[in-house]
Amino acid sequence: MANYSFASDNTAGACPEAMEAIVAANAGFTSGYGTDHVTAKAADLVRQLLDADADVRFVASGTAANAVGCAALCRPFESVVAHEHAHICTDETGAPGFFGQGLGLIPLKGQSGKIDPSALDGALGEPDVSNRQSAAALSVTNITEYGTLYTAQEIRVLTSLAKAKGLGVHFDGARLANAAAAGFDLKAIKTLDVDILIVGGAKAGASMSEAIVLFDKGLSRRFDARLKQAGQLPSKGRFLSSPWIGLLESDAWTQRSRHANAMAEKLAGMMPFPLRHPRQANALFVDMDDAALGRLRAKGYFVYRFLDGSVRFMCSWATTPEAVEVLGEALKEIA
Amino acid sequence: MANYSFASDNTAGACPEAMEAIVAANAGFTSGYGTDHVTAKAADLVRQLLDADADVRFVASGTAANAVGCAALCRPFESVVAHEHAHICTDETGAPGFFGQGLGLIPLKGQSGKIDPSALDGALGEPDVSNRQSAAALSVTNITEYGTLYTAQEIRVLTSLAKAKGLGVHFDGARLANAAAAGFDLKAIKTLDVDILIVGGAKAGASMSEAIVLFDKGLSRRFDARLKQAGQLPSKGRFLSSPWIGLLESDAWTQRSRHANAMAEKLAGMMPFPLRHPRQANALFVDMDDAALGRLRAKGYFVYRFLDGSVRFMCSWATTPEAVEVLGEALKEIA
Amino acid sequence: MANYSFASDNTAGACPEAMEAIVAANAGFTSGYGTDHVTAKAADLVRQLLDADADVRFVASGTAANAVGCAALCRPFESVVAHEHAHICTDETGAPGFFGQGLGLIPLKGQSGKIDPSALDGALGEPDVSNRQSAAALSVTNITEYGTLYTAQEIRVLTSLAKAKGLGVHFDGARLANAAAAGFDLKAIKTLDVDILIVGGAKAGASMSEAIVLFDKGLSRRFDARLKQAGQLPSKGRFLSSPWIGLLESDAWTQRSRHANAMAEKLAGMMPFPLRHPRQANALFVDMDDAALGRLRAKGYFVYRFLDGSVRFMCSWATTPEAVEVLGEALKEIA
Amino acid sequence: MANYSFASDNTAGACPEAMEAIVAANAGFTSGYGTDHVTAKAADLVRQLLDADADVRFVASGTAANAVGCAALCRPFESVVAHEHAHICTDETGAPGFFGQGLGLIPLKGQSGKIDPSALDGALGEPDVSNRQSAAALSVTNITEYGTLYTAQEIRVLTSLAKAKGLGVHFDGARLANAAAAGFDLKAIKTLDVDILIVGGAKAGASMSEAIVLFDKGLSRRFDARLKQAGQLPSKGRFLSSPWIGLLESDAWTQRSRHANAMAEKLAGMMPFPLRHPRQANALFVDMDDAALGRLRAKGYFVYRFLDGSVRFMCSWATTPEAVEVLGEALKEIA
Repeated sequence: MANYSFASDNTAGACPEAMEAIVAANAGFTSGYGTDHVTAKAADLVRQLLDADADVRFVASGTAANAVGCAALCRPFESVVAHEHAHICTDETGAPGFFGQGLGLIPLKGQSGKIDPSALDGALGEPDVSNRQSAAALSVTNITEYGTLYTAQEIRVLTSLAKAKGLGVHFDGARLANAAAAGFDLKAIKTLDVDILIVGGAKAGASMSEAIVLFDKGLSRRFDARLKQAGQLPSKGRFLSSPWIGLLESDAWTQRSRHANAMAEKLAGMMPFPLRHPRQANALFVDMDDAALGRLRAKGYFVYRFLDGSVRFMCSWATTPEAVEVLGEALKEIA
Repeated sequence: MANYSFASDNTAGACPEAMEAIVAANAGFTSGYGTDHVTAKAADLVRQLLDADADVRFVASGTAANAVGCAALCRPFESVVAHEHAHICTDETGAPGFFGQGLGLIPLKGQSGKIDPSALDGALGEPDVSNRQSAAALSVTNITEYGTLYTAQEIRVLTSLAKAKGLGVHFDGARLANAAAAGFDLKAIKTLDVDILIVGGAKAGASMSEAIVLFDKGLSRRFDARLKQAGQLPSKGRFLSSPWIGLLESDAWTQRSRHANAMAEKLAGMMPFPLRHPRQANALFVDMDDAALGRLRAKGYFVYRFLDGSVRFMCSWATTPEAVEVLGEALKEIA
Repeated sequence: MANYSFASDNTAGACPEAMEAIVAANAGFTSGYGTDHVTAKAADLVRQLLDADADVRFVASGTAANAVGCAALCRPFESVVAHEHAHICTDETGAPGFFGQGLGLIPLKGQSGKIDPSALDGALGEPDVSNRQSAAALSVTNITEYGTLYTAQEIRVLTSLAKAKGLGVHFDGARLANAAAAGFDLKAIKTLDVDILIVGGAKAGASMSEAIVLFDKGLSRRFDARLKQAGQLPSKGRFLSSPWIGLLESDAWTQRSRHANAMAEKLAGMMPFPLRHPRQANALFVDMDDAALGRLRAKGYFVYRFLDGSVRFMCSWATTPEAVEVLGEALKEIA
Repeated sequence: MANYSFASDNTAGACPEAMEAIVAANAGFTSGYGTDHVTAKAADLVRQLLDADADVRFVASGTAANAVGCAALCRPFESVVAHEHAHICTDETGAPGFFGQGLGLIPLKGQSGKIDPSALDGALGEPDVSNRQSAAALSVTNITEYGTLYTAQEIRVLTSLAKAKGLGVHFDGARLANAAAAGFDLKAIKTLDVDILIVGGAKAGASMSEAIVLFDKGLSRRFDARLKQAGQLPSKGRFLSSPWIGLLESDAWTQRSRHANAMAEKLAGMMPFPLRHPRQANALFVDMDDAALGRLRAKGYFVYRFLDGSVRFMCSWATTPEAVEVLGEALKEIA
């Protein structure tokens, strides 16, 4: 039987704090479509987390969150610039283009998933011509797709370039909890010229929910209609918001991500294969040839080979030290 | 504080069977994006419910389910014919057009939410000209938007007309459980020329989930990519599928809808306002002027006035006989 | 052989002034995609016609012009309010929804194709809720779809209501030349709070071209990219712009429309069937039963029955007095 | 004053044969929206050119033709595979994604604009997973974007690979006339498994028109509605079709392209800069540094630097031997 436990940080269920909050929020009657008191409270908690006056919504998937966000910042004949291996570019089935009616993606280079400022500068310097989809928004991801951490200052460099050209800024924080656990200051985000931030729930221990944070409140007008039309405003909205109450009131969102990061660190200590990218959060990317990967899979471990050729190991809130040790032994055997 | 309990059948939480199944399914690691064993089992149960060999997927909202279904049956320069007051026409913020890139809706007349076959016949007889979006699909809803029940034979009359013209058929079963509880034979659906059926979860006691049933398996190819792109293939898919295990293994899906229907029947017995439409499931639509409605709202009851001018009272799995009695008294006072 | 001459004002070719200008503009080499000197000159002439400082573009069809315009003013989860029988609502195959990714159309009542201000007021008073596509733009048409003329003041009443609610305004002037010929002051349009005006070419004697006039220059940013992506920025742009030079330098645009209007007036004087709508420009709409229409078609005349049940006769720049007289005789015979 | 004559093969006007046919077709009244006798005749001529029983439509731009074609072959969650520098990938402002609601483009490598079969094979071998837009259509271009010519057999290799995987085939023939003039057998296209062929008009001497040829007649159903909705079915359709009568009855379409190719050959003979790609039709791509290009532009010649870094010189039906000689002298001076 396949063992998915290191394949992704979304192969675990929800953490106890989230589940308890879901069960608690289930009682009684509420109004629908995100107008309920549970959703209001969860939005407050997200604002507190960020120390920001922003509008907050909850949607069912990271793909939806990112695509709705990109569509809010770009017209169809414009583009989002992003790292060439960003999740929106490689793993969301073209959702930004679907939600944004064909909006384009301009892929940028950069080491270990972080956009090279000079690549961004070059893209922004392209002439604004009618035969190409010129840039209208920048998308940054932290923790990046390769498990690395931007500092606030590194992001500021990118967003400053973008803002100087009039672009909007989308921040994919699917693993923002892991970034916070690694020292990224959440309260600094409001100073980074971000228009739309996605705060990841699923990978941080929620059931199935991502928060959309609208720092630019000008984007909020009719946002509920935008979500409803996009199939992202379910009637029983409390099921999207309640896990956040459990995660944020208890600080489990950060604490359990700290655990995930620590498990990855522990695994790095046992890893016989060379790391391709610095281990800064809950992911390891290693150089492993197909033969070795085959031997690992034969032991029941399913892990992915990524676009850069490396093999990824993810830890989550649910990863135990024992599981890391068993995997570490397995890796030693197949190395 | 507002009392939403009769405003809709989605103001309640999930029923105990659903919640228990969600909690149970949360344990352990699974693969993602609907490839997990929980989702596989839930799909089996839906097939059993319908006694049908069909492909089954789960999505987060009824709007998404309907819009994805319509988009799968229509091209942008074509239309879905539906009752003029069908949910897709009136309450989904144009989602079919968004998912279907501008596909049209052709509204049909018909008493109490049921499409008049002669209206359908007329619409299908329109010439296929380039300046209009000709019909490519029929959408029927059972229980209808006005709480009435189609018999299988009534649906067959409509779908036969549609099929004779080469249309696809979409069946919005957001309240199919209430139809089943009212005697509609679920196992007959497979004989009704339906291509895509939506089986409602939320209103039947699930948390946040609707099932898309693809009777026409030709539509299944790359359907997961369709869902992923549309933001409807969340990583932790078990949260969309597990409630179905609780609802269907226990038969709570039907039994609790039977209760909801019975509560509406009980309320009908106490209703001092005339019914606009026959009470056949869990909804009452009554003639009530604004003054009376104002008095009712002043007592803390929030209910909606509908497009036909009537005021709706909905019962759900969570409606208690006591709540009906208290409402009945309130209605007597304000009548 | 069918005689299409009264079926529409687009069954004629281009008038001599337009054709000569096309031939003249064909000489020599130019830059592409609307950056050429012919296009620049034609845009100047449109600005002069309207006595307005506005940006001007040329596209290949009225459907494209209207749909691009609506899409520029509305997001997918919003709507355009328009007369229920406006061309965008009835004859453009849902193009606004296609270009606008599912944007909605809110049909309004009003006599003889003119929006009833109270109907507009009512639509604008609808609550801004998430389950409906709220209004973001108003579309007015002059000459209307039923051949009637709005005064500037009548349009101002509508656009003032729209602007008070923050809507954009789209003006479909497919037959603006006929309006001008009937006394409508083109130079007043700039005072009417119009954001996007379509100035009709084809029906006024051009080959195949409509002008998009952007009074709100904020809409102009990247408009060429919008057109290019929409397939409306052909390389040899002079073929879209040159007819305007012929039409506007010579004033043929107005003079030939005056002729068209006069021909309709002449036909009205011979018409044995009652007029359904006032004859104010180049169209007649009459009450004619199917038997009479059949007899007319048997004589080789093809004319359309409209949505309001009336039968339409259109005159154009190419309609001759003799043709009107012959038709008048034919009508007398079949009446 | 800028000299655009070698910037593109669309900087010339229409050739005399096309203009005369436009003027001739302008006489009299016709039915609208492509149902006229001029359009019928032009479609017949295109069928004769290709010796094929196919449906033919005419649209206003190559971008529209390609985008409509791609959209007809792909669903939004699928992709078109094409050469990475194909016009649809680089110069159409994302039109395929706009018309196709976010459909993806999979760029393939290959020398001098021709798809490397092994690159195609690799792309088609990618697993059909839900998080990526899998291939649904192949697009080939002949003459390629770098002025090179595929043989029929080379195309067959590609289309066979595509068909073996169930893909549709789109053939961008914006410069098909130049291919024909270079020896490409037009009558062989019907044997190449092509579903949709675009036959270029503008670059071959038409005014503003491209032909869409539907070899797969299953795609024809409601194609006029598709075009109308997309703004590509103008009322006076004869202006899109008549130039084809002039071009094809006289064989000017091929003969004038032969001239264009010959002019490029002549220019190649005088070219002091090395050719980057083989000169096989009407284009030269040369290695020229910025300093030299600056000197050339200072002499009044505007030419483009392409994505591969080379500088392009295009000849057209209107290029004269004298103009080539003058340019040749200028090049010698700045080399």
